[in-house]
Amino acid sequence: MSGAMPIEETRYGLRAPVALPYEQALEKTTAALKEQGFGILTTIEIDKALKEKLGVEFRRYTILGACNPPLAHRALSTELELGLLLPCNVIVYEQPDGGSVVAAMAPLPTIGMVGNPGLQDVAREADHRLRKALEAVARV
Amino acid sequence: MSGAMPIEETRYGLRAPVALPYEQALEKTTAALKEQGFGILTTIEIDKALKEKLGVEFRRYTILGACNPPLAHRALSTELELGLLLPCNVIVYEQPDGGSVVAAMAPLPTIGMVGNPGLQDVAREADHRLRKALEAVARV
Repeated sequence: MSGAMPIEETRYGLRAPVALPYEQALEKTTAALKEQGFGILTTIEIDKALKEKLGVEFRRYTILGACNPPLAHRALSTELELGLLLPCNVIVYEQPDGGSVVAAMAPLPTIGMVGNPGLQDVAREADHRLRKALEAVARV
Repeated sequence: MSGAMPIEETRYGLRAPVALPYEQALEKTTAALKEQGFGILTTIEIDKALKEKLGVEFRRYTILGACNPPLAHRALSTELELGLLLPCNVIVYEQPDGGSVVAAMAPLPTIGMVGNPGLQDVAREADHRLRKALEAVARV
């Protein structure tokens, strides 16, 4: 098969370096999330916000607020205040080498912090779907 | 002084029950966050989103994405992928008794998950400002 890069795990993220320029990585990420049932509820262009508010330069960097409605409904019905950790953030930022990084908030450590065992199944499903989305973006 | 209710701490949130109807609680929360230097970058009306996407009823519930630009800039300059946990979510939802709950994502446990000691100061400042905002909302 073609060169899919592996998904890396950080303490709080699932992460894929991708050999695509920023705009393409962003577009492909949005499409891959949609494939996995995640719509984009919010978009924050960090670099533009920091430029506007503070006048500082920052690398191009977007935070997408991704929501899979059935998963969100199950999660909120189990743990009402889980809205503190929703939607699921997915970030895309540019790298100095012309490539990009795409990363998603890792559901399993996040749910570990919440400490509600009733959320395990929904977290596992979110984890699985986010990994699939990242794999699709990393498959160039 | 008048009856300020105490701020409660959950495993991942700072929380204040407030004796205000939902719309007023939402308005007062937005104003109190502004007082503490947090602008609202995103607003998600969970009940409307769930109704639209799934056709289900849910209590009125808003997720505000609150951002204090100098704190966000310090945080992202220290930990590039912290965008996975930004902006700081603040939720407002209605209670069956006609009151509301306002809660903020707790910066200290969240930063504990990240495990970057360089974020301690910025997390402490965010914690302090969010508590001040919640206290102002709870002071009816």
